[in-house]
Amino acid sequence: MDSVKYEKGKLLLLDQTKLPVQVVFLEYVDYLSVADAIRSMKVRGAPAIGVAAAYGVVLAAHQYKKLERIVFSNKMEEALNKLRETRPTAVNLFWALERMAKVLEANDLEVSEIVNRLEKEAILIQEEDLAMNIKMGFLGQKLLSPGVNILTHCNAGALATAGYGTALGVIRAAAKEGKVNMVYVDETRPLLQGSRLTAFELMEEGIPVTLITDNMAAFFMQQGKIDCVIVGADRITANGDVANKIGTYGVAVLANYHNIPFYVAAPSSTFDLSLQTGKDIPIEERNPDEIRKIGEVWIAPKKVNVLNPAFDVTPHQLITAIITDKGIIESDYKLNIKGMFF
Amino acid sequence: MDSVKYEKGKLLLLDQTKLPVQVVFLEYVDYLSVADAIRSMKVRGAPAIGVAAAYGVVLAAHQYKKLERIVFSNKMEEALNKLRETRPTAVNLFWALERMAKVLEANDLEVSEIVNRLEKEAILIQEEDLAMNIKMGFLGQKLLSPGVNILTHCNAGALATAGYGTALGVIRAAAKEGKVNMVYVDETRPLLQGSRLTAFELMEEGIPVTLITDNMAAFFMQQGKIDCVIVGADRITANGDVANKIGTYGVAVLANYHNIPFYVAAPSSTFDLSLQTGKDIPIEERNPDEIRKIGEVWIAPKKVNVLNPAFDVTPHQLITAIITDKGIIESDYKLNIKGMFF
Repeated sequence: MDSVKYEKGKLLLLDQTKLPVQVVFLEYVDYLSVADAIRSMKVRGAPAIGVAAAYGVVLAAHQYKKLERIVFSNKMEEALNKLRETRPTAVNLFWALERMAKVLEANDLEVSEIVNRLEKEAILIQEEDLAMNIKMGFLGQKLLSPGVNILTHCNAGALATAGYGTALGVIRAAAKEGKVNMVYVDETRPLLQGSRLTAFELMEEGIPVTLITDNMAAFFMQQGKIDCVIVGADRITANGDVANKIGTYGVAVLANYHNIPFYVAAPSSTFDLSLQTGKDIPIEERNPDEIRKIGEVWIAPKKVNVLNPAFDVTPHQLITAIITDKGIIESDYKLNIKGMFF
Repeated sequence: MDSVKYEKGKLLLLDQTKLPVQVVFLEYVDYLSVADAIRSMKVRGAPAIGVAAAYGVVLAAHQYKKLERIVFSNKMEEALNKLRETRPTAVNLFWALERMAKVLEANDLEVSEIVNRLEKEAILIQEEDLAMNIKMGFLGQKLLSPGVNILTHCNAGALATAGYGTALGVIRAAAKEGKVNMVYVDETRPLLQGSRLTAFELMEEGIPVTLITDNMAAFFMQQGKIDCVIVGADRITANGDVANKIGTYGVAVLANYHNIPFYVAAPSSTFDLSLQTGKDIPIEERNPDEIRKIGEVWIAPKKVNVLNPAFDVTPHQLITAIITDKGIIESDYKLNIKGMFF
């Protein structure tokens, strides 16, 4: 299921906050509403928010294309900034907006031609993401043995990307080879991307799935039920440190303790070589009510003090391999990441 | 707040499934309803279910005291069995029922005298539990330094016991000494005893609390925000292995990785010297809908495959010390547990 669809001047986003109970596409013609959709996680997943933001720029261009050239440029600059401010951790957002900003730099072109090029660029970002996912699936599944039992955390599936998925792309490719015995899915509190999205996607694909709460992962590792962990990523720094959904770091420590391989699957767009280590990645702190309530149900004292970091950083030492569209990086991350991108 | 109250022939249980939204006491005169209350976790926490089960036996005795002596004995045997079958993991249940069974063995006594003695024994179990908790608090708080930041999992508080609490008893005693800077509370999926009960208890006591989701514990350990972990226990075997709420084992592994002391607080009634290691402890598997739904809200695909073990076992190697009412056990658990109880 595609979570982001573009039709001339109109963006359709699958409302991921409503899944799996309702499958609803929301229609956008205003880029500010797209910014809200990213902020409120109607669209989520590092690659998918990159794609959605790129289309947000296209919508802005359509909104402003009849203005004077200089006003158009200023408005587009403002739109880029508004979209950049939506979420701080996943780098794909900034990467996609940077690509769109580059297109806007062609000052010698007519506005109508700029709009065309922005549209083409956004479509290209989306198509490239899908292609990278399929490549990662092809490369990554080779790491897995027949009968494998996999644990995944959060949702790094078709919904989180332009389609196919990063971590779930690898799982999908392995399942196609008949290798997958069971996928254990952490429910991923507080927003339950595991139970609401990953379990839903795997069931739709007919891949065997067992849903567990986050705090059960250690138990099933201890029981020998998990052969490897595969997760996605929101940002990977030059040394191979990985920011991903809160809870990923804990799973990596547990995998390490139980001698279970821990794999990260992420496209080139997730690498941020401007940061040397994960310590420099900004971690988004979200609304405490995400923890105090589920839907309209209070599950904690209304005024209880809460901390709600949305991501954590897994140091590269805990990562067995990073599966990318350009190849698999298995050791000396700093050297090999540099080698891969320059 | 006492979660279990007995008045002549009548048992009052605080409905812990309704907290913190509603504070409701349910009244019981029928032991089978008490068995249901234990099974459905209206009363929960290893020591508290021991106390509730003991009073369940008292209610049964009142229900059957007018029957012929032999019928009374048979009915009481049946009642003991029904109460034993409610939950498999916490040993305090079986320990309390064993004490009640001993009282029933006095075949030479009048039934009315048996009923009196059962009532006295149940009250004694409750009073002893409270005393053991206070003793553990006194001993355990000595392990903590001023300004300590503690992580706890599930609820091992006044609600889980005859009052004061095991893990929370130690925290309460340390707070009274002005030592506690912050208590981080894992929400403890699926039944949210951390957010619903522990956060509630600590707020009522004015002890600083920060609620987090289970998958955030590793993040805060990595950030250096946690100085020690204190949890309760449902059963401790002869070698010092500890069964406790699902997720405890994961926290112990994480604490070990971050060189953070991991303490277990449990009264004598939680030790089961008939089992050599934690591998022999039966782990309760509960209803999958506890994970698929919160209240009436579906948070996962309705038919998704789920595993829902309610407990896990932490091997003694990961435990820094066990705080008991008889003293603190810090190493060579097998020898020291034996020494403490014989």
